[in-house]
Amino acid sequence: MGLGLEVKAMEEVTLYGLIGQMMALPGRRAELIAILAEGTTEMPGCLSYVIAEDREDEDALWITEIWDSEEHHAASLQLPAVQDAIARGRPLMAGFGQRFETTPVAGVSFD
Amino acid sequence: MGLGLEVKAMEEVTLYGLIGQMMALPGRRAELIAILAEGTTEMPGCLSYVIAEDREDEDALWITEIWDSEEHHAASLQLPAVQDAIARGRPLMAGFGQRFETTPVAGVSFD
Repeated sequence: MGLGLEVKAMEEVTLYGLIGQMMALPGRRAELIAILAEGTTEMPGCLSYVIAEDREDEDALWITEIWDSEEHHAASLQLPAVQDAIARGRPLMAGFGQRFETTPVAGVSFD
Repeated sequence: MGLGLEVKAMEEVTLYGLIGQMMALPGRRAELIAILAEGTTEMPGCLSYVIAEDREDEDALWITEIWDSEEHHAASLQLPAVQDAIARGRPLMAGFGQRFETTPVAGVSFD
């Protein structure tokens, strides 16, 4: 199922979504983003994983995720590439901000 | 450019992202989501528009958006279908929650 998450297709699948804010150490956001981007390209069950800079706080970033199941998300945290990214990224992190768990139910992406 | 927002492709384009929370009147979230989903399928410049239920607050929903420009986002608010959705949705809304403006810079979607 592509990210074209048509409402119909979604009714049979309970997707899992995450909206999370992360704080980088001052001046280290770009490095942290690059590390996160590298480690998160091959994650089974991940329909979307987007990393974005917060426009108001220059040290904050947002990760918005869509998974085909909560289980696949949990399993991703054990993937070697993700573990490696977490290990390399942690020294650049100041902490975590807000975190919201969601169920994506409608929407589209435009290819 | 598909939503496969490879880091390289992003370096030439400054994308515009929005993460916004909306509150429905008690028991009216599903109706509000359906209205929003209907009115937001044909929006020039919109790379992703996902509506999700908040897993903790049964009246709250989240909209995460990615646009190829801030201007395209602003223009979308004048589209007849969007104006219609806002007009039909407003009576079902209790208000707006948190809102974050971002610049998506990395990430992928898996087709």
